[in-house]
Amino acid sequence: MADTTAPSRRTRGGGGAARRAARSAVSFETARYIERNIPNYEVLSEEALEVIEHNAEVILEEIGVNFPDNPAALKRWADAGADIDGERVRIPRGLARQLCATAPSMYTQHARNPDRNVVVGGKNLVLAPVYGPPFVRDAEGGRRYATMEDFRKFVKLGYMSKWLHHSGGTVCEPTDVAVNKRHLDMLHAHMTLSDKPYMGSVTEPSRARDSVEMSEVLFGKDFVAENTVMTSLININSPMTFDDVMMGALEVYAQAGQACIISPFIVGGAMAPVSVAGTLTQVMAEVLAGIAYSQLCRAGAPVIMGAFVTSIDMNSGAPTFGTPEASQITYGAGQLARRLGLPFRSAGGFSGSKLPDAQAAYETSNSLNMGLLSGVNFMLHACGWLEGGLVSSFEKFVMDADQLGTLHHMAAGVQMDEEAQALGAIREVGPGGHYLGCAHTQANFKTAFWKSDLLDYKPFETWSDEGARDTQTLATERVAKMLNDYQEPAMDPATREALDAYVAQKKEAEPDSFM
Amino acid sequence: MADTTAPSRRTRGGGGAARRAARSAVSFETARYIERNIPNYEVLSEEALEVIEHNAEVILEEIGVNFPDNPAALKRWADAGADIDGERVRIPRGLARQLCATAPSMYTQHARNPDRNVVVGGKNLVLAPVYGPPFVRDAEGGRRYATMEDFRKFVKLGYMSKWLHHSGGTVCEPTDVAVNKRHLDMLHAHMTLSDKPYMGSVTEPSRARDSVEMSEVLFGKDFVAENTVMTSLININSPMTFDDVMMGALEVYAQAGQACIISPFIVGGAMAPVSVAGTLTQVMAEVLAGIAYSQLCRAGAPVIMGAFVTSIDMNSGAPTFGTPEASQITYGAGQLARRLGLPFRSAGGFSGSKLPDAQAAYETSNSLNMGLLSGVNFMLHACGWLEGGLVSSFEKFVMDADQLGTLHHMAAGVQMDEEAQALGAIREVGPGGHYLGCAHTQANFKTAFWKSDLLDYKPFETWSDEGARDTQTLATERVAKMLNDYQEPAMDPATREALDAYVAQKKEAEPDSFM
Repeated sequence: MADTTAPSRRTRGGGGAARRAARSAVSFETARYIERNIPNYEVLSEEALEVIEHNAEVILEEIGVNFPDNPAALKRWADAGADIDGERVRIPRGLARQLCATAPSMYTQHARNPDRNVVVGGKNLVLAPVYGPPFVRDAEGGRRYATMEDFRKFVKLGYMSKWLHHSGGTVCEPTDVAVNKRHLDMLHAHMTLSDKPYMGSVTEPSRARDSVEMSEVLFGKDFVAENTVMTSLININSPMTFDDVMMGALEVYAQAGQACIISPFIVGGAMAPVSVAGTLTQVMAEVLAGIAYSQLCRAGAPVIMGAFVTSIDMNSGAPTFGTPEASQITYGAGQLARRLGLPFRSAGGFSGSKLPDAQAAYETSNSLNMGLLSGVNFMLHACGWLEGGLVSSFEKFVMDADQLGTLHHMAAGVQMDEEAQALGAIREVGPGGHYLGCAHTQANFKTAFWKSDLLDYKPFETWSDEGARDTQTLATERVAKMLNDYQEPAMDPATREALDAYVAQKKEAEPDSFM
Repeated sequence: MADTTAPSRRTRGGGGAARRAARSAVSFETARYIERNIPNYEVLSEEALEVIEHNAEVILEEIGVNFPDNPAALKRWADAGADIDGERVRIPRGLARQLCATAPSMYTQHARNPDRNVVVGGKNLVLAPVYGPPFVRDAEGGRRYATMEDFRKFVKLGYMSKWLHHSGGTVCEPTDVAVNKRHLDMLHAHMTLSDKPYMGSVTEPSRARDSVEMSEVLFGKDFVAENTVMTSLININSPMTFDDVMMGALEVYAQAGQACIISPFIVGGAMAPVSVAGTLTQVMAEVLAGIAYSQLCRAGAPVIMGAFVTSIDMNSGAPTFGTPEASQITYGAGQLARRLGLPFRSAGGFSGSKLPDAQAAYETSNSLNMGLLSGVNFMLHACGWLEGGLVSSFEKFVMDADQLGTLHHMAAGVQMDEEAQALGAIREVGPGGHYLGCAHTQANFKTAFWKSDLLDYKPFETWSDEGARDTQTLATERVAKMLNDYQEPAMDPATREALDAYVAQKKEAEPDSFM
């Protein structure tokens, strides 16, 4: 609904393609990634930042970090000047930060549709969907293990979501496909069902290599050698442990010039101290070590400083989302990332709720708003995340994706030209009048205010007559309509055949494994 | 639930009364008003602020504002140097701002329980409940006209809500009581069922006088003459019209030294231009004129610069809430208020949704977070608002009131002492360990993280076994429990008798009117 009237950056920019898309019945218009025209919000003082940075170096130098089962990594660290003690790597003060200096402050991730390229870093914000849940949920089918068919549906929804810039990675875990082969189907889905940028596999170094090879089929080998076409998620096993599988994938991607998010995964009180300052200190130490290691693999490899950090309910041990402490940590991490001069990944449409209900929305909005204002450059999990990341929700996907429009409009900042000042309109209307029909309103109303494509603004009586639908019900209907309207983006048939052949050949080459 | 373990400013401060309250079975602990230890967020540049302030003076000088049916007001303005043309008042550049200078930058509103006094202004944020809806809604009874019994229930819920500092005013419109008498019952309810500060009546100047007289009964005549015991809501009839009823109430309160919020009521595109800058310009002109007028009534009368401003859905004409444009206007209005040196009222738990569902929560969270960061000093409608202000929702009241806890914890800022830095804990746990059992976690977990008293953090299986309740269902149960646990705060019997007698005598003095 209403895609033809809802404002978007492209429409406002007046691009001809956007205007044509807006006139067509089925519009798959995608907004350009956000370029903030508003300031960041900073919660930590200069002095606090210096204390945290100092303490992070204390951790690296005195406590150190673990690189288990990875002799090559230990050798790289030793060659760079670190002290090695078993699997423990102690990094002299300043060395990690110095190594981080070769990482670019900004990079372009290419999409097969160049209009969908994203520039990660600076004032920009790129929005990508939920990543990782083994379950899916919708109103009709309830909660169940995710399948490849679910995965494809989420990729389609992401492709059609106007405010989503990135197709993401494991939008849900397709549990009906062998563990050692599902990355092939997932990448194939992102490459063929969408034309937005995507993420590569990280569950084995060999699967990272497959991801690079499939990208070479899609983009051409030379193009991939020269350009970044994937941004993949490398989690640190907090506290201070860099496991060999994730590091193996990082090594593959860094050496191929492909981007990685290097991200502590922290539930405060479990994987980090139960305090904001302590958690930020550990985050800083971990990302310094991880990003430094990426540069040891290949100086200049694009990386994002990640921080997946949330709080805990000490009664149940459950992670809690959209909490003020999670916000404080994210605001602080954004400041630390900017001081390091690197792109920043954090926030998302987080919630611990089991349902796409009010709890889900409170927690999600708290987190989305904080993500915008904290200067996040790459927001994974921007839509569809439910139940602490155990569930990809179809309804919540389109609900959150609609809310992402508010971030675009907020980030555009306040226009101050003469038309926006509107003194003429105020003169025209005068005391006691109204603005509904005045010339200024007529000229500007279509683009003046963000408009939801989902939420209900109707009068009570109309809403009642139409079945008194709540947000989840509206979302169920929107999911069905979008999947019904979906049309696959065009692809060169030879490329498509080559992708199909790559997947088939790889699948034939080894037996299924569900381990 | 969990009042005994949930952190609060008082518990953290270690007050003996708070500890005793925490030990009792029924705790009606109330957090102190928020004193921000975090910066404000500012979206407008210095240059933009100067343009808006300049244009606001253009409006006052060239277009002017209307004070209809109010010869005394016109005389006050003429005496002050304004140009009068019929009911139109044109105010020479700079005069309104100069008159505003006598208003205090901060004031204390006293409550009958001095522990509940609030200081309005500066870095503080006082939270007050929903104001004005003619309807109420709960899950069981649906949407219906509000009654005095509903009103009393909301006052009880407000009294028991830990994060709510103020009892508010018309928490719903008691439509079963005569229009000319309901203010007596409403004030009686706030005065007897709660001990938090409250608002006075503004629907007739005579009712404002009754509010002052009832306050004199409660606090003593001398106390009221010397102190502010009410903060009442004076809406401007935007654009640029100051109607005689509201101005009459303002005159009464200002002359009695009682505080007023002077607040444009604007749906952008209807009562103001369909642009952020234009709306802010009109808001600034209107509050300058209104606050200046309050100071003409009594120099030094406490006032709050208000801004009830939201966007519109041009398809339906419905006001829309929690939108990015509403946020931009509020951030900007906060900057303008600080430059004027006056307390600022804006934001609230706004939503256009018909139900306390995900839409309601998205919109509310957007607005609550913006309210905190925009520097709001007095937030009316902080909980319970639904359906664009037509409905006071019992469930949403407790849902929002729970979320207000996040604002308190966010506002507390980041502690940076040695305990918070937690380097000892990081050393103790080391790479690969976990923090759940470490000494630092044991010492700090009770107060480290905000904890909801309402939302569900349980594992899926437990939640399922307990009936798979959504947020609304949890809230229904919480409302029932709170009303069941409610206990009236103690009051001197003579005061209570005098209040009863005042209401009875006033009610007998004139016939019921429902106009």
